[in-house]
Amino acid sequence: MPGDLPNDEFRAAMHRVADLVADYLEGVGERPVLPPVAPGEVTARLPGSPPAGPEDLASILDDYQRIVEPGVTHWNHPGFFAYFSITGSAPGILGETLAAALNVNAMLWRTAPAAVELERLTCDWLRQMLDLPGEFLGHINDTASSSTLLALAAARHRHGSPAVRETGLAGVPGLPSLTVYTSDQAHSSVDKAAITLGLGLDNVRRVASDDAFRMDPRALEAAIRDDRAAGRRPIAVVATVGTTSTTSIDPVAEILEICRREDLWLHVDGAYGGTAGICPEYRAQMAGIEGADSIVVNPHKWLFVPVDCSVLFLRDEALLKDAFALVPEYLRTADTGVTNLMDFGPQLGRRFRALKLWMVIRAFGVEGLRERIREHCRWARELAGRIGATPGFEVSAPVPFSLVCFRATDTGAASPTAEDQDRFNERLLAEINAAGPVFLSHTKLHGRYVLRLAIGNLRTTPDHLDRAWQLIEETAERLRVSRELPER
Amino acid sequence: MPGDLPNDEFRAAMHRVADLVADYLEGVGERPVLPPVAPGEVTARLPGSPPAGPEDLASILDDYQRIVEPGVTHWNHPGFFAYFSITGSAPGILGETLAAALNVNAMLWRTAPAAVELERLTCDWLRQMLDLPGEFLGHINDTASSSTLLALAAARHRHGSPAVRETGLAGVPGLPSLTVYTSDQAHSSVDKAAITLGLGLDNVRRVASDDAFRMDPRALEAAIRDDRAAGRRPIAVVATVGTTSTTSIDPVAEILEICRREDLWLHVDGAYGGTAGICPEYRAQMAGIEGADSIVVNPHKWLFVPVDCSVLFLRDEALLKDAFALVPEYLRTADTGVTNLMDFGPQLGRRFRALKLWMVIRAFGVEGLRERIREHCRWARELAGRIGATPGFEVSAPVPFSLVCFRATDTGAASPTAEDQDRFNERLLAEINAAGPVFLSHTKLHGRYVLRLAIGNLRTTPDHLDRAWQLIEETAERLRVSRELPER
Repeated sequence: MPGDLPNDEFRAAMHRVADLVADYLEGVGERPVLPPVAPGEVTARLPGSPPAGPEDLASILDDYQRIVEPGVTHWNHPGFFAYFSITGSAPGILGETLAAALNVNAMLWRTAPAAVELERLTCDWLRQMLDLPGEFLGHINDTASSSTLLALAAARHRHGSPAVRETGLAGVPGLPSLTVYTSDQAHSSVDKAAITLGLGLDNVRRVASDDAFRMDPRALEAAIRDDRAAGRRPIAVVATVGTTSTTSIDPVAEILEICRREDLWLHVDGAYGGTAGICPEYRAQMAGIEGADSIVVNPHKWLFVPVDCSVLFLRDEALLKDAFALVPEYLRTADTGVTNLMDFGPQLGRRFRALKLWMVIRAFGVEGLRERIREHCRWARELAGRIGATPGFEVSAPVPFSLVCFRATDTGAASPTAEDQDRFNERLLAEINAAGPVFLSHTKLHGRYVLRLAIGNLRTTPDHLDRAWQLIEETAERLRVSRELPER
Repeated sequence: MPGDLPNDEFRAAMHRVADLVADYLEGVGERPVLPPVAPGEVTARLPGSPPAGPEDLASILDDYQRIVEPGVTHWNHPGFFAYFSITGSAPGILGETLAAALNVNAMLWRTAPAAVELERLTCDWLRQMLDLPGEFLGHINDTASSSTLLALAAARHRHGSPAVRETGLAGVPGLPSLTVYTSDQAHSSVDKAAITLGLGLDNVRRVASDDAFRMDPRALEAAIRDDRAAGRRPIAVVATVGTTSTTSIDPVAEILEICRREDLWLHVDGAYGGTAGICPEYRAQMAGIEGADSIVVNPHKWLFVPVDCSVLFLRDEALLKDAFALVPEYLRTADTGVTNLMDFGPQLGRRFRALKLWMVIRAFGVEGLRERIREHCRWARELAGRIGATPGFEVSAPVPFSLVCFRATDTGAASPTAEDQDRFNERLLAEINAAGPVFLSHTKLHGRYVLRLAIGNLRTTPDHLDRAWQLIEETAERLRVSRELPER
């Protein structure tokens, strides 16, 4: 009888994996963050066809160590400062491993009671940590993109028409185009949700932001007014606490007031920055969030939980159920008064994602998590201070959380144009990232090329930041002297 | 400095988890499949608020062992025969553990080269195993629900209007309701996709199926004709290879012909049954699949990969990119000729799901996987033969794969009505599931209550099936004698 592999073989391999993983985390900081591989190189080292017969776990793990591990970008590296820096922390990895062995599908309470109840409980722990009102109920999705999509689906149901569920957007008599508002700094997931939900990109208004990259409430009001005048129907505003480019914070309280007056859904994208709300001193900046209809916070971003884990809080969860619930006969159970997570969206299957979140919160404790968030923010402010005090560099945006946006202004030329500076910074980024110890990313602010250094990995220390800054300064100096500008 | 937990502490905990997991799999068959917990019981055993300070990994793992592990439904149990029986196999658990430690986000090639290339490679291995044409390109989603949603989004783009992306469904002048066809046996994910995409439930035609629960191509043609006559626009047909209730197989070749003639998208939902296509002898039953526009097969269902892992094959992948791709500045890279997985749908973040699939295929080998699929199917046929030969029982549907649908006909009463039989079978299911060693589910066929026994876990042996059948027979006999019918 074939069956699974013999348990003793599995046990031995699990112990080898335990060491592989611990060794990896111990040594990851010595690797280049970006792997030295060209497109297609990993593929070329692997057989193009699957093996006919079984292979030893030992040789599979050897190949993993030889080809896969050195072939990934090391998100768990202390020098990973690109995008948003994240952490697959020790307790999170333990939780994910246990979840893989249980292998439950938490679609119904009955199919995984502890998984469903732990999901509700850990989301409520997070709600308490963020000091959000008790009426918010949370559940876990894969990504903030999915959470925002669900929030906008609920908005479409309430402020568009509940008939959309049955008749579709084209089938509700007289239903105009439904419009959604978000800032010109907001994440592309708002646009992707609009595509998916059939609302259309043209119906996403990218409201102008101010000099500090925060949505301008007056511009929001004007956009809503224009759409109403043109016969369109505004349904929702997505405010961001911690935008992707600069971590700017929209004026949520003012936006909330507009949403109430205009009867619009307010969704707050706090995927990254929302997490800082676990520290009381950060809550004033995001005031108004407590009045939102929905909020997304991603523990897989800045709460040290391995991907994927995105928590969506809804003030009126029943609405999402109204929009999505469908129970075919083969999924009916006699259980009453229970939560069936499949009712909250298009997916039926659900992993046991709460386990890792539960283990992370317990292993670090609320105070421990706060301390880590505060430290990351302090380091970012210190680095920004240092950059601001260095001739030839400028800090390009305020630093409300743990991300520093900056650029070199001195290219080595006498009076560089803004375009020269852009090309210099583009080259600077490429050189820094090619060096090995760090990985930074970029964005454009007011049309200018800007470097982003995001702090968020638990293995990062002030030493890593010192060395990162030293590398950046030295590289800039070398480029200035060589005066080689990149090709256009 | 707080940081992550000390590495030696993590290493020790990982070794404990290695044993926890190996012990769990060794002993899971001794547990009741359904945990003896009432709704709210797990929650009541856990603190309602998060701890302020850090807790020891040892005590967290103790709580896991004491409360969480015995509180889940055991999907990895050899007596789990409900829904579709799945396996978190040894190599799959190893792969998931390693992926959690790497913690990459495979959104761009640059952010995880080996993860992106392994995803393309393993999907191509699976394509070869299924003997699908080389033009099919695969990528991995969380669930078949998501894969089907993406397929229908592509169909909306091509056969509805590409303008939907920009203007939304309500904004394309003269665009009628777009209709989708699937059988009355198809999965609820088709309906949920229609809700999400703004097409509407009313525009999903549930085409009648024949006596063997296969879509009736003549009824499909008639439904398309009626919709066209009423001014609606048909866009897609979803055919199923292995429906959820009975694993029936739609006549894909005939449906393909209709789709070609009518210029409609053909999506094949082979989430469960499609896997059997790795065995050449099962391919004739699903002929036509090679001509589809898209196919979903879930390795987390019957290919022994832990949840989640759903492969979507697309003949024209560029179309999905046309529908969804959006690249904000902060995600632009200079890499050319690479695959950026974020372009294929609404989600930006992506776990490294290919690793476990790669390890499972290698550890079992193609022949080993075939052998396991064949064995499950053979056992199902044998069990069906046994049930069919037992007075007082009947097999309720053909058994093309590894699921047996059956019901008791003898309730102990002289001439029971069909409703009496339904109540008897409902009671029978409840009693069987309460006993502990097995978990079965149910469906309704032609309006009658039917039990489902799905084989798919690698720990299941013929012994487990013998004991399951013995339990079913004995329980039915006991109920017949007691003549206690359930309350209405």
